[in-house]
Formats: sequence, structure tokens, C-alpha cells
Amino acid sequence: MFLTRTEYDRGVNTFSPEGRLFQVEYAIEAIKLGSTAIGLKTKEWVVLAVEKRITSPLLEPCSVEKIMEIDDHIGCAMSGLIADARTLVEHARVETQNHRFSYGEPMTVESTTQALCDLALRFGEGDEESMSRPFGVSLLIAGHDENGPSLYYTDPSGTFWQCNAKAIGSGSEGADSSLQEQYNKDLTLQEAETIALSILKQVMEEKVTPNNVDIAKVAPTYHLYSPSEVEEVITRL
Amino acid sequence: MFLTRTEYDRGVNTFSPEGRLFQVEYAIEAIKLGSTAIGLKTKEWVVLAVEKRITSPLLEPCSVEKIMEIDDHIGCAMSGLIADARTLVEHARVETQNHRFSYGEPMTVESTTQALCDLALRFGEGDEESMSRPFGVSLLIAGHDENGPSLYYTDPSGTFWQCNAKAIGSGSEGADSSLQEQYNKDLTLQEAETIALSILKQVMEEKVTPNNVDIAKVAPTYHLYSPSEVEEVITRL
Amino acid sequence: MFLTRTEYDRGVNTFSPEGRLFQVEYAIEAIKLGSTAIGLKTKEWVVLAVEKRITSPLLEPCSVEKIMEIDDHIGCAMSGLIADARTLVEHARVETQNHRFSYGEPMTVESTTQALCDLALRFGEGDEESMSRPFGVSLLIAGHDENGPSLYYTDPSGTFWQCNAKAIGSGSEGADSSLQEQYNKDLTLQEAETIALSILKQVMEEKVTPNNVDIAKVAPTYHLYSPSEVEEVITRL
Amino acid sequence: MFLTRTEYDRGVNTFSPEGRLFQVEYAIEAIKLGSTAIGLKTKEWVVLAVEKRITSPLLEPCSVEKIMEIDDHIGCAMSGLIADARTLVEHARVETQNHRFSYGEPMTVESTTQALCDLALRFGEGDEESMSRPFGVSLLIAGHDENGPSLYYTDPSGTFWQCNAKAIGSGSEGADSSLQEQYNKDLTLQEAETIALSILKQVMEEKVTPNNVDIAKVAPTYHLYSPSEVEEVITRL
Amino acid sequence: MFLTRTEYDRGVNTFSPEGRLFQVEYAIEAIKLGSTAIGLKTKEWVVLAVEKRITSPLLEPCSVEKIMEIDDHIGCAMSGLIADARTLVEHARVETQNHRFSYGEPMTVESTTQALCDLALRFGEGDEESMSRPFGVSLLIAGHDENGPSLYYTDPSGTFWQCNAKAIGSGSEGADSSLQEQYNKDLTLQEAETIALSILKQVMEEKVTPNNVDIAKVAPTYHLYSPSEVEEVITRL
Amino acid sequence: MFLTRTEYDRGVNTFSPEGRLFQVEYAIEAIKLGSTAIGLKTKEWVVLAVEKRITSPLLEPCSVEKIMEIDDHIGCAMSGLIADARTLVEHARVETQNHRFSYGEPMTVESTTQALCDLALRFGEGDEESMSRPFGVSLLIAGHDENGPSLYYTDPSGTFWQCNAKAIGSGSEGADSSLQEQYNKDLTLQEAETIALSILKQVMEEKVTPNNVDIAKVAPTYHLYSPSEVEEVITRL
Amino acid sequence: MFLTRTEYDRGVNTFSPEGRLFQVEYAIEAIKLGSTAIGLKTKEWVVLAVEKRITSPLLEPCSVEKIMEIDDHIGCAMSGLIADARTLVEHARVETQNHRFSYGEPMTVESTTQALCDLALRFGEGDEESMSRPFGVSLLIAGHDENGPSLYYTDPSGTFWQCNAKAIGSGSEGADSSLQEQYNKDLTLQEAETIALSILKQVMEEKVTPNNVDIAKVAPTYHLYSPSEVEEVITRL
Repeated sequence: MFLTRTEYDRGVNTFSPEGRLFQVEYAIEAIKLGSTAIGLKTKEWVVLAVEKRITSPLLEPCSVEKIMEIDDHIGCAMSGLIADARTLVEHARVETQNHRFSYGEPMTVESTTQALCDLALRFGEGDEESMSRPFGVSLLIAGHDENGPSLYYTDPSGTFWQCNAKAIGSGSEGADSSLQEQYNKDLTLQEAETIALSILKQVMEEKVTPNNVDIAKVAPTYHLYSPSEVEEVITRL
Repeated sequence: MFLTRTEYDRGVNTFSPEGRLFQVEYAIEAIKLGSTAIGLKTKEWVVLAVEKRITSPLLEPCSVEKIMEIDDHIGCAMSGLIADARTLVEHARVETQNHRFSYGEPMTVESTTQALCDLALRFGEGDEESMSRPFGVSLLIAGHDENGPSLYYTDPSGTFWQCNAKAIGSGSEGADSSLQEQYNKDLTLQEAETIALSILKQVMEEKVTPNNVDIAKVAPTYHLYSPSEVEEVITRL
Repeated sequence: MFLTRTEYDRGVNTFSPEGRLFQVEYAIEAIKLGSTAIGLKTKEWVVLAVEKRITSPLLEPCSVEKIMEIDDHIGCAMSGLIADARTLVEHARVETQNHRFSYGEPMTVESTTQALCDLALRFGEGDEESMSRPFGVSLLIAGHDENGPSLYYTDPSGTFWQCNAKAIGSGSEGADSSLQEQYNKDLTLQEAETIALSILKQVMEEKVTPNNVDIAKVAPTYHLYSPSEVEEVITRL
Repeated sequence: MFLTRTEYDRGVNTFSPEGRLFQVEYAIEAIKLGSTAIGLKTKEWVVLAVEKRITSPLLEPCSVEKIMEIDDHIGCAMSGLIADARTLVEHARVETQNHRFSYGEPMTVESTTQALCDLALRFGEGDEESMSRPFGVSLLIAGHDENGPSLYYTDPSGTFWQCNAKAIGSGSEGADSSLQEQYNKDLTLQEAETIALSILKQVMEEKVTPNNVDIAKVAPTYHLYSPSEVEEVITRL
Repeated sequence: MFLTRTEYDRGVNTFSPEGRLFQVEYAIEAIKLGSTAIGLKTKEWVVLAVEKRITSPLLEPCSVEKIMEIDDHIGCAMSGLIADARTLVEHARVETQNHRFSYGEPMTVESTTQALCDLALRFGEGDEESMSRPFGVSLLIAGHDENGPSLYYTDPSGTFWQCNAKAIGSGSEGADSSLQEQYNKDLTLQEAETIALSILKQVMEEKVTPNNVDIAKVAPTYHLYSPSEVEEVITRL
Repeated sequence: MFLTRTEYDRGVNTFSPEGRLFQVEYAIEAIKLGSTAIGLKTKEWVVLAVEKRITSPLLEPCSVEKIMEIDDHIGCAMSGLIADARTLVEHARVETQNHRFSYGEPMTVESTTQALCDLALRFGEGDEESMSRPFGVSLLIAGHDENGPSLYYTDPSGTFWQCNAKAIGSGSEGADSSLQEQYNKDLTLQEAETIALSILKQVMEEKVTPNNVDIAKVAPTYHLYSPSEVEEVITRL
Repeated sequence: MFLTRTEYDRGVNTFSPEGRLFQVEYAIEAIKLGSTAIGLKTKEWVVLAVEKRITSPLLEPCSVEKIMEIDDHIGCAMSGLIADARTLVEHARVETQNHRFSYGEPMTVESTTQALCDLALRFGEGDEESMSRPFGVSLLIAGHDENGPSLYYTDPSGTFWQCNAKAIGSGSEGADSSLQEQYNKDLTLQEAETIALSILKQVMEEKVTPNNVDIAKVAPTYHLYSPSEVEEVITRL
């Protein structure tokens, strides 16, 4: 059965007899190997938290960026191939800047997410902007616009969903269960921070330190926590 | 025999010895895995109803869009790969807007459907707009123009048919049978809503709630039902 | 021996050791699966008749178009992949309109047929207009020009022949025999209609109704029969 | 050994280890399946005669064109894929017209033949005008220019030879032997007609009629015989 | 299992079923065969040291360049395919020069690194600037800008990390361990030089001489040590 | 071992593990199947002689051109695929004409040969002028310029050598040995003619006649012998 | 194990699992089959000497060029595929001429070598100037510029090294050992000539004559030795 699969995935973007797109499924496997990221939406804010996997003490923790700003009002956490994520984020930054320039107002979070997914969908098409394979990355896009705060989750197929809370990466299965138990819409920002980090702690193999996690909020502008702000959340656990 | 198939489907768009296009057939398989959607045409209106498959309680139901507006007078329900459907709908939106701009009047429902199918047909051609594989999606296109209401059904081969009623997706076989029994041309809008939802209910594994189904009508303009409007139909069952 | 074939058809447009073009032969197989269409030429008119295969009672019969107008003086019946036929017909419509615009007179039926076949021949060439595979469709092109009425038959290889009468599709073998017995050049229009429909009736599995057949004539302008006109022919059988 | 061949012919235009071009050889096979055509050059004229293979009594014999005019002073007979031949002839017609327009005089027969062969040679090159496979057709090109009458024979490799007499197609082997026995340079036009048709008669399975053969001469302008002119030659046999 | 791998790496840039990109992993293998390079960052300077592998006494040591200047304030050490590294460095030189020209100020070290990685990431895309395979090289990029000194490490996947100290190439495993033991942020330039060279000495098979190692510093401008300056460091060991 | 070869020759222009280019070697095989051609250089003239292989008595001997003029002062004899040779000769004719037009003087023989070989070398590159496979032909290029007479030999790899005498084609091995025995630099034109033809006679299966051989000289302008001039040489044997 | 290799080398420019580029390695094999070439640098001059392999006494020795001039101050010796070398040399000639034209001064030897290697590196990229396979040639580039004399060695991977002395081709292994024993930086030009030729003599199968070796020097301008100058060196041995 395994051999049969290999027959199909060579055509980067073709259906198998069962109607499946294997390259997309394999890209999703790449994300299951990635570090865990968690997003939570409260009534007014969105919180993102990620595990950073500092493989060597000589690495600069701040250079392992797994949460990035897209625009003043949008940030995203990622899991999977970081170089792919950077390409997507760079594309989104250009799109949001162009939108501000053309229309004099910020791009909505949904339009930004759609723009990212349009690029992700067209892999294998030979366009100048697209890749020859699916982008091996999932994103949690946190933003705040005229509709209030929102949290989107994208996968390598170019599909996206709006969520109240979501985990991606190697620990996502356990983290999602915990989120379902602990989430409610009336969480304060502090509670959201605590829940995000405590769930991340459960799925991480190492002790949580300001060096190996990152936290960001969009409330209503994007802010990446400084080590001391992270420390403060850790002490609350 | 299965191996023989695999010999042919690598060339994305080539005939097998029996005169079949396997990639199109495999794309149709992708739709059989999709959620069920139902369309019904009455004398004056068209009704669309879809199952939404909310996989997690933390997902925002309204972000799982399986019925979309194309223009004021046209909407569509989809089954299959949602990202593919979005590309087709986006293409149709541009076409209908261009038509309004060029001719000062709305595009007919048939021309809109034809435009969608032209794009779907040309997969594997290396055009800028086309995909390298068939679009893995079926659409039910509901519209209202100078010829009155109409309902079209499209498949991944780029073929389309006009129907009085039609179901697509994993539950389509059973739903089509029920439609043939219950459909007649003199249905009122209320009756059409009830029939659509009751048939959807039969093929869904879960209990029907305003969260996991969507209903829309074109009568003569597109309108997506609010949760309370859906609730009202549910209570009538 | 079958395996040997598969070695060759991957190059879409290459000869086998016996000098055959398999993709063209496979496309011809696609047509053998299609519905039957019949054309008859009399001294002054041409008649086309097709089987429509209404797979569901909920389908609008008039949306299953298997006879289409190309220009005022040319129509065609098709068998095979309908979406492919639409592309060819659309191409021919543009060609005939351009000809009228450039020369102020209608395009001859032969030139129109040649234009269609030029497009069909160049599959696999990577041109903007051509397909990556043969067009899986045969056409019966009925027209009337300065040389009087004419009937052309085209196949997926881009070859065409002028005929007095011809059947295509799944029932073509039996229908062609019957045509040879019953055809003569002095048929009246009424006789031609009756012969076409009676032969179609023999090869159809279902009862003939105004819903599941279409009839058209070019005499000297294209006219698709209304249901009541078809009914009239049926009653004459 | 057969399998070894299949290894090579996938690259459309590559040498086998023995220095052979299989796609060209396979295209030559396609011609061996074609109908027979014969050309004879006398001191002042060239005569072409072809078998037409009318597969059905309902086919219009005159629409099975296997002898075509290229210019006033050049005609050609063909064997193999007719749609391919039409493309070559169309190309030659444009070339000869361009030559007349640019230089105010007819193109020589050799230049015309060379232009055809240049196109034939470049298959698989991805040029706009060339095909992705060899042209599956042989031509006998009969013409008359300042050097008097001439007869050229072309094959799918893009090579051409000047001949006094030549047969191509399924019956070419027997016909060539007969030509060698019966040909001499002092034949009158009438004798040439009679020899061409009598040899064609030997290799045809059916009785020769004005419907299933075509004759043309270039003497010094191209003329395709009417049915009654063909009848006249037949009666002389 | 090995065979399975070979199935995937033919598509230069596709995922395996486990979500891996084999061509990137194989390129990383190419680096494991390369000579060792070491980078260390102190509070004010960055030091680079590389092994040169002079395979023949007739080779000019200075022509084996494994440390190169990118701009006044940026240099890099490399391990892997030298010709690939030259292409990346040349690209970076153009980028930094363009930046100076357009903005009148030096490009930051991070932007320069990002520009290099953008090129590296897009292998197999058919762009004019990109390669058809991953760049088989890792770089240690040492620079000094408004944020002070920095050291970046890039790999063939187009990912980069900021480090305090890092070793690449065949001896990187042992060298990294030694770096972790001996590195601290308060090293003087002299101490950094000594540590870099003493660790390099451990992983080299030959005796260290001014001919077979190169040392460079960015403090705050790029300077490649002359043989006598290298000799001075060697005597300190 | 044979199978191993087939693995490599599919990539038209790639090295085998032993560093060989199989498509070039296979093209050289094509020449070994060709007719024999001989070239001899004397102090003032160059003589070319070729076997013509008239396969049918109905073929015009003069249309089997295996010696062609490139310019007034250059001619060439060929062995292998004649259509390929024509393309090369046509290219050389354009180059020499352009040179005369641009510089007002004839192109040297070496530059002409280099121009031919540049085209031959770039097979498989997808250029407009180049072929997708090697040119299956060897040429003997005879010319006379400011450096006196010269004779060049080219092969399908795009390499060329200057020779005093050289044979190519199926009989080249025996002919080369005979040339080495009989050649000296002080041959008169008459002696050169006699040697060329007598050696050709040895390797031909048929009797030598003015119809089945061609002779040409460049002395200092190109001249193709008339049948009577050939007859004269034959009688001298 | 051998089969495994064949799996990888089809992608012209992809890594094997061990991080190797097989097409480059196979191209290096092509050079091991080539004739031997030797280069030596003295304090003021560079000497090149090559074996010519005159395969037939009828070949003009001077047309077997294995040492070529690039510019007044640069020459190169080659081993491997001569047609490939000619392409590289021609490219370098254009580059050096352009440099003189643009900057009014000669191009340095290193820049010239880099320009050659840039072209060599980009094989398989589909650029207009690059090849679809590696260039199967190694060069010894001898030059003299503002930095004095220099000798560069290039291989098919596009890498280059500066050397004092170097041998390439089939006899390179033995010749390199002899060079290491006999080379010192204070050689006179005469000594360099004698060493180069005596080492070449050891690795050649035939007796050394002015016909089967070539010698050139750059001192400081390029000069290819005449047969009598070569004879003079031979007599010194």
C-alpha cells in the first residue's frame, strides 16, 4: 500500500485514486514535527505562545523567531519549516503595506489570511510567487480590526478557519484537548496568558524559561513580550 | 488492474485506453469525501442548504463558509476542497463585476456558470489562471435573472447541468433519492427550506443545529440565513 | 501486449512502433461511450438528431445541450466529452464572427470545419489555444452556404470528412447500417426527420420523448426544434 | 529486444544505441498503413494518382482529398495521416504565396519541397510551427517550373528525393516494381495516366471507379481530374 | 527503506511521506564532508577561523579562499561546495552595494543574511537567480552594525540563526562541544582568536600552519589576517 | 551492461558514470550506417568524392546531393542523416553570406567550420537554432582561403580537425588505411581524383558509374563535376 | 550499489543521499580520459605543455589545438572534451575584450577565471549561455597581470585554485608527483620548459616530437611555440 502512495506523490499536485493530494498530506506531516504553538482569543485580545527549541546554549534565543509581526494589528505564530513561514509572512507584510498605501486603512485580518492562503494554494503552478511544493508550515494568525479580535488557523492546503483557540505542531493533539477544557469566552488577558503557557509547559520536554518560549498579544496592537514580561507570566503558573 | 490505472494518471490530463480521464475521476472521489450540500429550485426562488462539519468546539462556525455569494443575484454551495472552491468563486466574482462594469447589467446565471467551468476545464494547461490539476470541488450555483430562478450543478470536468434539485458530497446518493420523491415544481419557499433541511438531517451524523448547517436563498437576491433564521427552519422540522 | 501500450501513451503525442497515436485512439474510445447523434443531408436541408440521456428526473432537459448553434447557417451535434465540445464550438463561433466582421459575409461550412480541426490537431503542442490532450469529442457539423447544404464529420485526430449521412457515439455502428439502407438523396425534410428519429429510437435504451432527444435543421438557417415540434416528429414514427 | 526499443522512443527525438531515430521509423510505419499514391514524370508533365478508400457509401467522395493543390504550378499526393498532410500543405501554400508576393515570381518546386521538409525535420523542437512528433505522412510533390516538370518524394524524417516515378503507401512495394518495369522517359501524358491507374488498380482491393481514385496532372499548371475525366482514363485500361 | 528514499528525491523540492525534504538533507550531507569553520562573537568583535585543506604543496594557499568579505562590515566563513558559496557571496555583495547606493547607509547584518537565505530557499523554482538544487554550503556570517557585532549561521534550507559561537563542516560536532565549554560573553579578542584556533587544531588532521588556516575578524570592519598575523596567533597556542 | 546504458541516454545530454555522452556516441553510429565520402588535399586544391546509393532506378541521381556548396570557396561532403546535413549547410551558407556582407570579404574556412560546430555542440539546449538531439552527420569541409587549401572533418560532438585526407561513413575504416598508404603532399589534382575514386570503388558494393558517385574540387573555387567529367575520372582508373 | 547511483544522476544537478553531485563526478571522469597537460609558474613566467594525440598521420597537427590564447596576457591548456573547452575559451575571449573596451585595461587573470567558472557552475539551469550538463573539461589558465604571473586550475564543478604547478588529464597523477619533486620557485624559463616536457614525456605512450606536443609561455604576453622552438626544447631533454 505504501508503494502505491509513492506512485502518486511525484506529480506534486495531482489527485490519488482516492481523491487525496499526497504532497499536502506530507507537508502536514512536516508540521507534526514542528514545535508547538498556541493561540487564544478573548473578548478583546488575542494571545499567542510558542515553544522555541533552543538546540544549543550558544544560540541567541531572540534569533529563533516563531512569532512574527505582520502589521501593527496582526501577528502570527508558526510551526513547521521556518524558512517557508518567513516567505509567507514577508508576502503578507507586502500585502498589508500595499493595502494601507492604496486604501489609507489597515487590511482586515481575514483578507490578510486569505492573501496568505492564495499563495499557499498555488504551489506547483510555476508562478513567480508560488513554490514548487506546498509550504510546509501552519500559522496561527492573531489580529484585531473593525470586527474586534480574531484568530485564524491556516494549513498547507491553503485552507483557513477562524477559531477561539487552537494549537499547532508536535504537541497540538494534547494541547487542543486542554484548550477545549479550559477555554471560555470570558477569559481575562491574564487568564489567557496563564492558560496558554501552562498548556505549552505540559507538552514541552524541557523546563519553561524566558529563553525557550515566546508570548505575544494583539490588544489591539501587536506586542511581543520581553523576557521579563515572559518571566512574569511564568511566575504566575 | 489497479496498477494499470496508476500508469495513466501521472500525465495529469491524458486519456486511458478506455477513453477515461483518471485525474478527473479522482477529483470526483475527493468530492465524495466532502460534506453534503443540497439545492432546490421553486417557481420563484432557489434554496441552498449545507452541512458544516465543525470539527472542534473552539472553531468559529461562521468561518466555515460552504455557501458563498458570487453576486447580488447568485450564490453557491460547495462540496470538496474548500480552498479550490474559493479560487473558483473569486474568479466568478471578478467575472460578474467585470460584466456589470462593461455592460451595465448583471451577468446571467448560465454565463457565470460557463465562466467557472471554462476555468475548471483547462487544468493542466499551464495557463496563468488554471490549476495544474482538476479543481477538487463540485458547486451548486443558485441564481435569479431575466429567465427567473435557476440552479446549476458543476463537476470537476468542467461540465455543468441545470437542475430542479440536486445534492452533492458524501451524502448525495441518499439525498438525491429523497429529493426525487419529495420535489415538485409548486413547492413554496417554506416547503423547500423544510425539505432541504430534513433531507440534510437524514444524511448527517450529528444533530442539526444553527451552528452546523447553513441555509441561503436567492429570492431574487442572495441572502444567507442568520442563526435565528436557521433555528426557525429547524423548529419546523 | 497491453503493458506495451502503456509505454507509449505517456508521451501524449508520439507514435507507437506500429505507427499509431494511442492518445487519439483512446480519445476515440471516449466517444464510443457517448450518446448517439445522427446527421442527414437532403438536397436542400440538413437534419441533426441526438439522444440526451437525462440521468435524473430533476435535471432540466433543455440544459443538456448536445446540439449547438455555431452561426446562423451552421449547427453541430456532438458525442463525447461535452465540456470539450463547448470549447470547440466556442472557438468556431469566434472564427465565424471574425470572418463576418472581416469579409462581410458568412464563413463557408468547410472553412469553419477546418478551423475546428486545426485546433483539434494541435493538442499537446503547448499553444495557448490548444489542449494538452486530444479533444474527446466527435462532431457532426451541419451547414448551408453558397454550395448548398453540407454535413461534415470530425474526429479527435483533427481529420474531417463530408458525408450524406453519419452517426456517431455509442450506437453509431447500428445506426450507420440503418442509414445506408434508408438513405437516398431525394429524401424530403419530413422523411429525413422521420428516418433520423426512428434510427435513434432503435439504438436508445429508453422510450423516445421530447425530453430525451433533440432535433435541429439547417434549412437554410439553423433551427433547434421546440418540444412540440419534436413531439410532432415522434407521433409520425 | 522489443522492450529495448521502448526505452528509446520516449525521448521523441533521440538516437538509439544503433544510431536510429525510432519516432521517425514509427511514423514511417504509419505511412505503410496509408492508401497508395503514385507519381510519374514525363518529359513535359507530371501525373499523380491516388486510391481514396471510401469507407462508407454515405461519404462524399470529393471530400476525401488525397491530392491537393499547393500553387498553380505545384500539386501533391499524400499517404498517411491526412490531418498532418493538411498542415504541411497549408504551410507550403503560405510559403509559395509569400514568395510570389516578395519576388513577383513563382517559387521553384525544389524550394517549396525544401520548405516543407524544414518544417518536418524540426519536430520535437518546441517551435511554434513544428509538431511535438514527426509528421506521419509522405508526399509526392509534382510541379513545373523553369527547369521543366519535376517530382519529389518526401518522408517523415524531412529528407526528400527527386524521382522519375514513385509509389507511397500500403501498396508501394508492388507498385514501385511495376513502375520500374513500365516507366520510360518518353511516355506520353496518356500513357502515363494509363500506367499510373493500372498499377493503382493492381494494389487496390476494390474495383476502380471515379469515386475511389483521384488523378491530377501538372502540365504545366495543376489540374485535378473531374469524375468524367477519371472515367475516361478508366475506360482506357 | 533506502529505496524508498530514492523515490522521493527525484522531485528536487517535494516532501516525503514523513514530511521531509530529502534534497535539503542531502545537501546538508555535502557540508558534513566540508572543511571545518568556526565563528565566535565577543562583546565588540566577531572572529572567524577556517581550515583550508591544501591538497598539494604546489597549490597557492591564498587562492583557497574560505573566508570572504561581503561588505566593509560583513565577512563570512564557509563549508561545503566552494563554487556555490561564491555564488551566494557574490549575490550578497550586490545586495549590500545596492543598499548603500539606494539608502546611503550599510545594510544590516540580518537583512544581508535574509537576502542570502531568500536565494537559498528558492532552489528548484526556475527563477533566473536561483539554482535547480539546494546550495550545498553553510555559512557563518560575521558582521557589525548599529546593533553591535553579530554572528549568523545559515544552512541549505534557507533557515538562519543568530549565535554567540558556532562550528560548521566535518569537525563541527566536536568543535561545538568545545565551544560550549570555553565560550563566555566576556572574551577578549585575543582570547577569542586563541579559542577558535585551538579548537580548529583539535579537529584538523594536520599540523596548523599559516598556510592551512585562515582567520578574520570584524572589529568593526572586516579584516583577513596576514600569514604573519596568523603565525602570531599560532605561537600563542 | 546494455541496460545500464539505457539508463543514461534518456537525458539527451548527460554524462554516464564513465564520463561518456551516449547520445553523441549513438549519433556517431548513425554515421557508420551512412555512405562513404572521401576528401584529399593537395598543395593547391582539395578534392571530395562520395558514394551516392541510388536505391531505385527511378530516382534522379542529381537529386541525391551528398556534396554541397557552402560558398564560392567552400564545399562539403557528408555522411549520415541528409536532412540534418542540409540544416547545417544552410546555417553555414547564411553565416558566410553575412560575413561577406558585413566585412566585404569571404569567411575563412576555419571560421565557417567553427560556426557549424558551435551549432552542433549545443544540441539539447532548447535554443531556437539548435536541435534537441545531436546532428547525426559528419562533414568533410573543403575550402580555399588566404591560407591556401584546407580540409576539415567534423563529428556530431561539435569537434573538428584539419586533415590532409580523410574518409567518413560506412567504408571509412578501409578507406582511411588506403589513404594513409597512397597520400603524399605532392599529389597533382589528377592523381588526387584518381586516388579518391579508386578508394571509393574498393568500399562500394556496386560498380562505379557517373550516376552513383559525385566528385567536387575547390581549386580555388568550388566546382561539382558534371557526369562527363566524372566519366573521365572513371576511365582513368 | 551501482544501480543506486543511476537513480540519482538523471536529475542533472541534484544531490545524492551522501551529498554528492554525480554529473560533476562523471564529467571529471571524462577528463581522466583526456590527454595530459602541464602548467608551471616561475617568478616571471608561466609555461604550459600538452600532449596532442595525433590519431592519424593524415591529421594536420596544428589543427589539434589544446593550448589556446584567451587574451594577449592569458592562455590556457585543456584536457577533456575539446568542443566544450572551445565554448569556455570563446566566452572568456568575449569577457576579456568587453573588459578592455569598458575599462581601457586588461582583465585580471583571476577575474577571467572566475568568469569561466561562473558559466561552468550554472549547468542545468536553462540559461541561454549555460549547458544542460557540466562542461567536461579542465583548464590550466596561465596569465600575467599587475600581480605578476599566475596559474589557475579549474574543474567541471566551477571551482578554481591558484597553483605553482599542476597537471591534468589521464597522466595527471604521475605528472603531479614528478612536479612536486622537481618544482621550486626559482626555476628559470628554460628549466621550466625542460621539466614540463620531460614529465610529459614520461606519461606519453609515444615518442615526443614537435608534432605531438605543444608548448606555450606567458612572459608576459602569450606565445605558442613554433615547431622549431619545440624541437629546441626536445633536444635539451
